[in-house]
Amino acid sequence: MTPLPIDPDRMLRDLDHLRGIGAQGTGVARMAFSAADIAARRWLVQQIVAAGLQPVVDACGNVFGVPPGDGPCLLVGSHSDTQPLGGWLDGAYGVIAGLELARAARASGAPRVAVVSFQDEEGRFGGVAGSAVWSGAMSMADADAQTDGDGVSFAQARRAAAEIAPVSDAPPPDAFAAYIEPHIEQGPALDTAGQAIGVVDAIVGVRSWTITFTGQANHAGTTPMPLRRDAVQGLGRYIPALNAALAPLVDARSVWTLGRITVTPNAPSVVPGQASVSVQMRDSDPARLDAMHAAAADCARAVAADAGLTVEATPGLSLDPTPMDAALVALLARAAQAQAPDAWRQMPSGALHDACNVAARLPAAMLFVPSIGGISHNPDEDTRRADLATGLRVLADAAAGWAAR
Amino acid sequence: MTPLPIDPDRMLRDLDHLRGIGAQGTGVARMAFSAADIAARRWLVQQIVAAGLQPVVDACGNVFGVPPGDGPCLLVGSHSDTQPLGGWLDGAYGVIAGLELARAARASGAPRVAVVSFQDEEGRFGGVAGSAVWSGAMSMADADAQTDGDGVSFAQARRAAAEIAPVSDAPPPDAFAAYIEPHIEQGPALDTAGQAIGVVDAIVGVRSWTITFTGQANHAGTTPMPLRRDAVQGLGRYIPALNAALAPLVDARSVWTLGRITVTPNAPSVVPGQASVSVQMRDSDPARLDAMHAAAADCARAVAADAGLTVEATPGLSLDPTPMDAALVALLARAAQAQAPDAWRQMPSGALHDACNVAARLPAAMLFVPSIGGISHNPDEDTRRADLATGLRVLADAAAGWAAR
Repeated sequence: MTPLPIDPDRMLRDLDHLRGIGAQGTGVARMAFSAADIAARRWLVQQIVAAGLQPVVDACGNVFGVPPGDGPCLLVGSHSDTQPLGGWLDGAYGVIAGLELARAARASGAPRVAVVSFQDEEGRFGGVAGSAVWSGAMSMADADAQTDGDGVSFAQARRAAAEIAPVSDAPPPDAFAAYIEPHIEQGPALDTAGQAIGVVDAIVGVRSWTITFTGQANHAGTTPMPLRRDAVQGLGRYIPALNAALAPLVDARSVWTLGRITVTPNAPSVVPGQASVSVQMRDSDPARLDAMHAAAADCARAVAADAGLTVEATPGLSLDPTPMDAALVALLARAAQAQAPDAWRQMPSGALHDACNVAARLPAAMLFVPSIGGISHNPDEDTRRADLATGLRVLADAAAGWAAR
Repeated sequence: MTPLPIDPDRMLRDLDHLRGIGAQGTGVARMAFSAADIAARRWLVQQIVAAGLQPVVDACGNVFGVPPGDGPCLLVGSHSDTQPLGGWLDGAYGVIAGLELARAARASGAPRVAVVSFQDEEGRFGGVAGSAVWSGAMSMADADAQTDGDGVSFAQARRAAAEIAPVSDAPPPDAFAAYIEPHIEQGPALDTAGQAIGVVDAIVGVRSWTITFTGQANHAGTTPMPLRRDAVQGLGRYIPALNAALAPLVDARSVWTLGRITVTPNAPSVVPGQASVSVQMRDSDPARLDAMHAAAADCARAVAADAGLTVEATPGLSLDPTPMDAALVALLARAAQAQAPDAWRQMPSGALHDACNVAARLPAAMLFVPSIGGISHNPDEDTRRADLATGLRVLADAAAGWAAR
């Protein structure tokens, strides 16, 4: 197989150009359907046309670049919208890497590659809306009902799709054979290990609880310690007890986060009557995730019984893990070993991506490049240019392997 | 010595009458200078006159009932203002017990007893304002500058003192020989132990910190556990570590409370970057209190160093312990053993009281009766009538002892 004749410098120039659209300091403000987002998508359409591809803008504002020719081809991309003030790469890297692959394939006559920038991945309205509607995971009516923080609906905002280009029907999922989403890691694992590439084998699932310990609010001066039913003391037992309860269940990639605490009445002079804590667990193994979920509630019940408190466990956000396509993962792993020998790893994605939606319709996989210091959703987000180029080479290698399989 | 010819039933009838002024369900709403508070103080003035005592209403709205005669006499009382919705006893018990003692002393020709109801003990404006100004702990100008939640100043509100009775100068502290403040316990110690009387030997002091652990906020999905600097995990180590650090320093009456927790950014999907907790310690021994205070900060520093966090300890509310007068405490203890054999204890007051201010000027002590279930500042606050009567008998015994000493 012959790798695609990609041009990493051209990709980097395009990334620098895109960074200028909505630039704010070192960061970028390009929320879905903002003026900067529309300008960026108009520019992307121009690049698609210049590459000899057919641009398609659908009613969600998703932008596709489809090569001429028959039969399902590889689709590569991500999203070009950003957080309110995000970094310059995030999803943009996947879109521009996809553009470079599609451009190189088209110019060289190599097997066809299409590119996509999905809309509202970052959740101005609800998150991953463009890929959810396109893949059939969400109806257009449900997407339309989502609103942003100012009460603007997706239905109202997406009228601006026509400012990108005339709106038409997107090619359906079965117009494509597979999907690869390049993205920055958004975490510190690769950077800390000095590795250049992450081959994503699963997007982790999420299980969560709100655990509420209830005791008795009382005067902090007149209530002797043995007679207290102090909800914060329950919380203080729960946090280390949860670590101990999860330890035998997890592996090195499992995570759990106690991110939100609410104490009532939350006054220095009152023994706290109630304390709630969010427990969010992420793992790529559904059985392990369910075991962690059950253990977190069991642990809370044991702590409460021991501390003379009552406890309520209310389930929260729940998403099943999404395994990536094994054949695509194997291809990417082979290409990673060729382009970055022993400087890559197979890993789960701890964050949600458009690939979660697409994986329901197409073989899908993701490729990560390192985030310096693990920084993400922040103007300081960055990746070494050499790593961005290595990622492109791995993708080109894998695309050629896909065509030759 | 002959006990005063007190009438417990008359005291209970007066308490029932006072409960009706500002009654709301089983509770009472009689905040300082509310219409109900003024009505209650007018009624108190009537009882003082009827008992043959001289009523004095000072510029703060403190109401004194002073017996005719020369030389310093015993002063007994507390406060008749309440929390926004408080219980029927709280300070009212001390005022009406004082009234009954003063009335019995006046009628019988026994050694003189005066009564007082201080103003704004409950802190509509700032707390213990009436006794603070009277004892010289606070200037009238400073008291006047205090405002309530609606922006009404003490200066504005206290114009209503003239509606109680013509305002005049209060008798100075040196017009009295000693002060005894009867009060409900406001905690569960006596009720839990099945005891009728608490002889207060000290009003505890307070030391406090706000402890703030700082780590690094991060994505809850993409940040592996070993790379996290999670402030809530620091808090989770601190709470049990503080218990362990204080254990060798405290006695059974020491208390510590972690009443307020603030987490940043406090979102389920973000590894928390910062977590603050209030640590309030109360004890009657100044040396122990200082040792607890130092240990709480040392423990936080040790936990932070171990958890890879930084920590800041900011001192908060600090009040020195107020020892009660040893001779008065001994008198009350002797009287308690006589009236409630082996059903009383010597104990600190965990709550602040007017006696803290008065103790700077006069020998002072307090007598507690049980709070059923430890409930206080609540319409469900209650004390068995037999215990209210026992408290009165102990006071009468001690007053006779005081006169005979």
